[in-house]
Amino acid sequence: MPLIDTTRLEAALHQFADERDWHRHHTPKNLAMALSVEVAELVEIFQWQSEAESQAVMQSPEARHVEQELADIALYLVRLSSVLGVDLNRAIEEKLVLNARKYPAPGNP
Amino acid sequence: MPLIDTTRLEAALHQFADERDWHRHHTPKNLAMALSVEVAELVEIFQWQSEAESQAVMQSPEARHVEQELADIALYLVRLSSVLGVDLNRAIEEKLVLNARKYPAPGNP
Amino acid sequence: MPLIDTTRLEAALHQFADERDWHRHHTPKNLAMALSVEVAELVEIFQWQSEAESQAVMQSPEARHVEQELADIALYLVRLSSVLGVDLNRAIEEKLVLNARKYPAPGNP
Amino acid sequence: MPLIDTTRLEAALHQFADERDWHRHHTPKNLAMALSVEVAELVEIFQWQSEAESQAVMQSPEARHVEQELADIALYLVRLSSVLGVDLNRAIEEKLVLNARKYPAPGNP
Repeated sequence: MPLIDTTRLEAALHQFADERDWHRHHTPKNLAMALSVEVAELVEIFQWQSEAESQAVMQSPEARHVEQELADIALYLVRLSSVLGVDLNRAIEEKLVLNARKYPAPGNP
Repeated sequence: MPLIDTTRLEAALHQFADERDWHRHHTPKNLAMALSVEVAELVEIFQWQSEAESQAVMQSPEARHVEQELADIALYLVRLSSVLGVDLNRAIEEKLVLNARKYPAPGNP
Repeated sequence: MPLIDTTRLEAALHQFADERDWHRHHTPKNLAMALSVEVAELVEIFQWQSEAESQAVMQSPEARHVEQELADIALYLVRLSSVLGVDLNRAIEEKLVLNARKYPAPGNP
Repeated sequence: MPLIDTTRLEAALHQFADERDWHRHHTPKNLAMALSVEVAELVEIFQWQSEAESQAVMQSPEARHVEQELADIALYLVRLSSVLGVDLNRAIEEKLVLNARKYPAPGNP
């Protein structure tokens, strides 16, 4: 079982772009920009909140807004990986190995 | 079968944070900032490239770098969703319905 | 004569924050987030444009929008520098020296 | 006296780009991306800091790093405005009028 499985979402996003003739707009450069814009829309929700307030955001009127921004980020991330032909699950597996080396857990050899 | 399945990754990231005593740093506000920083590291790869060059990036020496940045973005996105208790798959399903309404496919009623 | 002079703008922004009791919200962490959000609003204008289209944006209906986003970025940049007590002109002078070393002009010794 | 004066910096940046044959890379689309990357390098400094820690950053070993990132942001902002032919001072004057209307000061009519 993979760490992350995006197979069905990749297919859905490909078809969505197909039906709207969006492929020529979906270059990696443009998709990376769009991804950064969606992340900023999430950051905007938290920019004047204290850290404690941000921890309670899902009990606030912003809850649905947060969900929608997280979804948008996931959509562009998976679409961009797909356009680039990157196996996101494999990339994550490799990055976790690097991270475990970079940040060894206390008590681990 | 869900559009996206992040169950195992969420568990791995929770344990990773646990072992390093990172939970108090992993507030939604901070994780949103970290996510934006990782996306910018991806944008940096493409900033002086033409759109055509960006389409060939996986045949360039930057290929592995791109994979690592995509992985980092996925890690923070899944970690943030997990900390907030957001069901990312459900959020995506709902967002795709909204998107289909917002951008109707030509020929669709 | 300095490379950049922000004296009057700093004073205007300080007074603006003062009158609205915004000082406690204007921490460097929050202002950096707000700055990143404003930059993303500018990026959004260009995300699906070709480079050539972006060069003609001031002859498009987006011209005024671009001006407003550039202004917002300047406001947060100058406000943040002011809150941090950074002399932006001196910082720029020093950075230009570093940049000239990092990217020597062809034909220069 | 203007709120902000960037005359000398614009000239310096134009000459810098000229000497390095950078004009064709300095499209608005690319410069907006580069600006967003520089802002993220500033955000990175603050991402795990508390708001209180961020207020003390200029008394920390990161002080010079902060100054350099602020300078980089200013360089790209002024360069982008210059390439677009935007009068940044006038844009700011107009935006401050809009902001004063949008956020009326308490006690003001």
